[in-house]
Amino acid sequence: MKHFTSVHDVSDIKALVKQALEYKADPYKDQRLGSRKRIGMLFLNPSMRTRLSTQVAAQQLGMDAVVFNVGSEGWSLEFEEGAIMNGTTVEHVKDAAPIMGKYFDILCIRTFPSLKDRDADYSEFYINQFIKYAGIPIVSLESATLHPLQSLTDIVTITEAISGPGFQPKTVNRKPKVVLTWAPHVKPLPQCVANSFAQWVNTWGEAEFVITHPAGYELDEQFTKGATIMHDQNAALKDADFVYVKNWSEFRDYGMISCTDTSWMLTNEKLALTNQAKVMHCLPVRRNVELSDEVLDGPNSLVTTQAGNRVWAAQAVLAELVR
Amino acid sequence: MKHFTSVHDVSDIKALVKQALEYKADPYKDQRLGSRKRIGMLFLNPSMRTRLSTQVAAQQLGMDAVVFNVGSEGWSLEFEEGAIMNGTTVEHVKDAAPIMGKYFDILCIRTFPSLKDRDADYSEFYINQFIKYAGIPIVSLESATLHPLQSLTDIVTITEAISGPGFQPKTVNRKPKVVLTWAPHVKPLPQCVANSFAQWVNTWGEAEFVITHPAGYELDEQFTKGATIMHDQNAALKDADFVYVKNWSEFRDYGMISCTDTSWMLTNEKLALTNQAKVMHCLPVRRNVELSDEVLDGPNSLVTTQAGNRVWAAQAVLAELVR
Amino acid sequence: MKHFTSVHDVSDIKALVKQALEYKADPYKDQRLGSRKRIGMLFLNPSMRTRLSTQVAAQQLGMDAVVFNVGSEGWSLEFEEGAIMNGTTVEHVKDAAPIMGKYFDILCIRTFPSLKDRDADYSEFYINQFIKYAGIPIVSLESATLHPLQSLTDIVTITEAISGPGFQPKTVNRKPKVVLTWAPHVKPLPQCVANSFAQWVNTWGEAEFVITHPAGYELDEQFTKGATIMHDQNAALKDADFVYVKNWSEFRDYGMISCTDTSWMLTNEKLALTNQAKVMHCLPVRRNVELSDEVLDGPNSLVTTQAGNRVWAAQAVLAELVR
Repeated sequence: MKHFTSVHDVSDIKALVKQALEYKADPYKDQRLGSRKRIGMLFLNPSMRTRLSTQVAAQQLGMDAVVFNVGSEGWSLEFEEGAIMNGTTVEHVKDAAPIMGKYFDILCIRTFPSLKDRDADYSEFYINQFIKYAGIPIVSLESATLHPLQSLTDIVTITEAISGPGFQPKTVNRKPKVVLTWAPHVKPLPQCVANSFAQWVNTWGEAEFVITHPAGYELDEQFTKGATIMHDQNAALKDADFVYVKNWSEFRDYGMISCTDTSWMLTNEKLALTNQAKVMHCLPVRRNVELSDEVLDGPNSLVTTQAGNRVWAAQAVLAELVR
Repeated sequence: MKHFTSVHDVSDIKALVKQALEYKADPYKDQRLGSRKRIGMLFLNPSMRTRLSTQVAAQQLGMDAVVFNVGSEGWSLEFEEGAIMNGTTVEHVKDAAPIMGKYFDILCIRTFPSLKDRDADYSEFYINQFIKYAGIPIVSLESATLHPLQSLTDIVTITEAISGPGFQPKTVNRKPKVVLTWAPHVKPLPQCVANSFAQWVNTWGEAEFVITHPAGYELDEQFTKGATIMHDQNAALKDADFVYVKNWSEFRDYGMISCTDTSWMLTNEKLALTNQAKVMHCLPVRRNVELSDEVLDGPNSLVTTQAGNRVWAAQAVLAELVR
Repeated sequence: MKHFTSVHDVSDIKALVKQALEYKADPYKDQRLGSRKRIGMLFLNPSMRTRLSTQVAAQQLGMDAVVFNVGSEGWSLEFEEGAIMNGTTVEHVKDAAPIMGKYFDILCIRTFPSLKDRDADYSEFYINQFIKYAGIPIVSLESATLHPLQSLTDIVTITEAISGPGFQPKTVNRKPKVVLTWAPHVKPLPQCVANSFAQWVNTWGEAEFVITHPAGYELDEQFTKGATIMHDQNAALKDADFVYVKNWSEFRDYGMISCTDTSWMLTNEKLALTNQAKVMHCLPVRRNVELSDEVLDGPNSLVTTQAGNRVWAAQAVLAELVR
């Protein structure tokens, strides 16, 4: 693995998932692997789980993690080639990235989309500029269109759940049915988590995969191809083993919100349509907007386990990059 | 000790003070105690001494400390049960706290009062929600009504001073006279440090304890009961061995300032009324408003020693929680 | 070395440069030197390279580094003696500094000039107050008028370049010609880097040193004395072996910008006047304002090497202070 910015960087998903679960069983088994290695963590945007779990993962590998909040602690960056920098940006990524490449062994970057300019966002311009100029492995801590550490965690969490004693598939030998459902929200969110989950589940190939959302919320087909798309949420939820709840803003009418129908919120009533599905969400979640309290606080919720698993996914990725 | 949020969490104050002073004598004596342990430090409000001294304490125990500035680096938190989260808060403590519980062994939290809603502040709603949901030991880095790491430090500092050769009590075998005096300030401050100091000194039981403040500045009796309350500062200061200077806003007329009388500032003239009292303040201090330069820079000031002792108090608490 | 705030703190520049280059060859050769030592890093202003390289340097010496962003994470500081603190500053340096002195073994401080009050800035009031009150070694991470870690790095970088096989002096045994040239910028910048570079090159004594800038941009003579000053950039650049590009605002008409002549930008055309000079800049650089892309991305640019060398300079200084 040279970088970790999408599922395409991973040669063997199942081996990476297995590695993550081995770290969960024995967090310090590779505590010297990262000795004298250092990761830089650059935040162009806020982060809680990703920030903390990656620091924990690094520490358990014996690596030093240095956190840098680019905007508040340093300078605003310029990304355009050939820019005449007489405006508000103070430093070009062409200058900053190679220096990071000298200070660190791995560079982790968090950068959100504009939700204004789809072409720019979907070119993954920012993170690609870091790849181009840093000269060291780049790890996405969520980029404009993808969130691969989250998606690896999601596959880890599903794998763990279906291996456990409590999992009862509807039919023996049937692949688990995984439903990604859109949920309401109060403001326009990136498509990252949904895109990335779709990309990973499709590549993993071990699920019957359905995506449900209101008309108009179609995601980019490069990520969803292979999944069944349905606009009827109730029909989609039928017999689901896992329901992944997530809001995203529109991809076609980019960054817009055309649906505010609160009936898309996942409730116990909807959950009754499923095969006692486990409920997932990447967090942070707007309670009683995306998901009802009763579901989040009920026995079917995997969200805390899932967030906890962020550590093991990050640890597997960092280990692979320095091994 | 399960948590550390008030004196009620401590079974033996004197043993904890002794432990702190042993760390002062030998900072690294337990340098492997915290191996593979990790504390999370969540700041919902600014902090200097508490932030730095707790990091130092953790490091001296071989623990990893991860700092997280909740508002600027992450998301604003919701604390209300059942909230429909369609406003500005992005993540519920019910979701955030259990995840912290998975990432860390101890969770340390700094959260100030609103000074608007007394009932909410005095219910210690925020820190109690973390206790309810995190599932790991919670350490207060100052909460809405209390500041126990400061108060433990204060008892450590007094204990150290009266054990030293320079201490001359007025009468042999007399308990030291400790006076907590209100001081002027330019803006409304929490009652935390004063509440907490009163609670600890009363529970400790090794001082003749007097609190003096202008009429109207009475603190909550749950903390002060057992102390002598006086409105005449000069009378209160008579023969004092320790004077603890601190401003607080009103508890009754909650968060208000009714007294701006600058004569409450502690000066050398006032100090002359005491038994050459040592002067304490938790810092930060408004010089020449709360305390005069001459006192702070004079031989009776303990404030730097006291702030330095923050490390040993924090170290004793963290050690007790992981032992 | 007691402190590190200017070249005057250094008894032997060449030995310090040698030490830095030894760390570059073997970063972990003194990995236990800083054991149980701790540096505090106080930022009153933004920083990227200095912040990150100093953390890396500390870690390679086995030291713990604690970062504190004074304004955003703590309180705003008061520096004036005798201040009646009834305004917006919350804590006096007289109280904060000695506490830092108790928590840390070395205190590193970043503080920019006001560019309004020349006398105050040039008195180095802020950093001198820390020296006066902290009681431990102070390291400048850039102060009001100087940036010694940058300048040490610059001498390290020049030393490394002239020792390498690619260096071709114009005449055998000639000292390398080093030209510090003013460059255009969009806003008023401190004189720190230019002052400090001049001070170090003059003290080092191993270069033929020329400073070129538009009339009116004369730097303080206490730093430049010994250098040749020229207002004709092209004449100054002739036969240069190193060109250090940097903007600064006026020292005489303090903090002002009187020249916006874009022809002062360093381009390949100008570079052709030199002896294939290596080009240096402390970064961040305004591309196509201070320096053209063609120079920065061309074979003569040393800027990434130079920024990378920040680690070794910081490591040499920290090592010297704890040795």
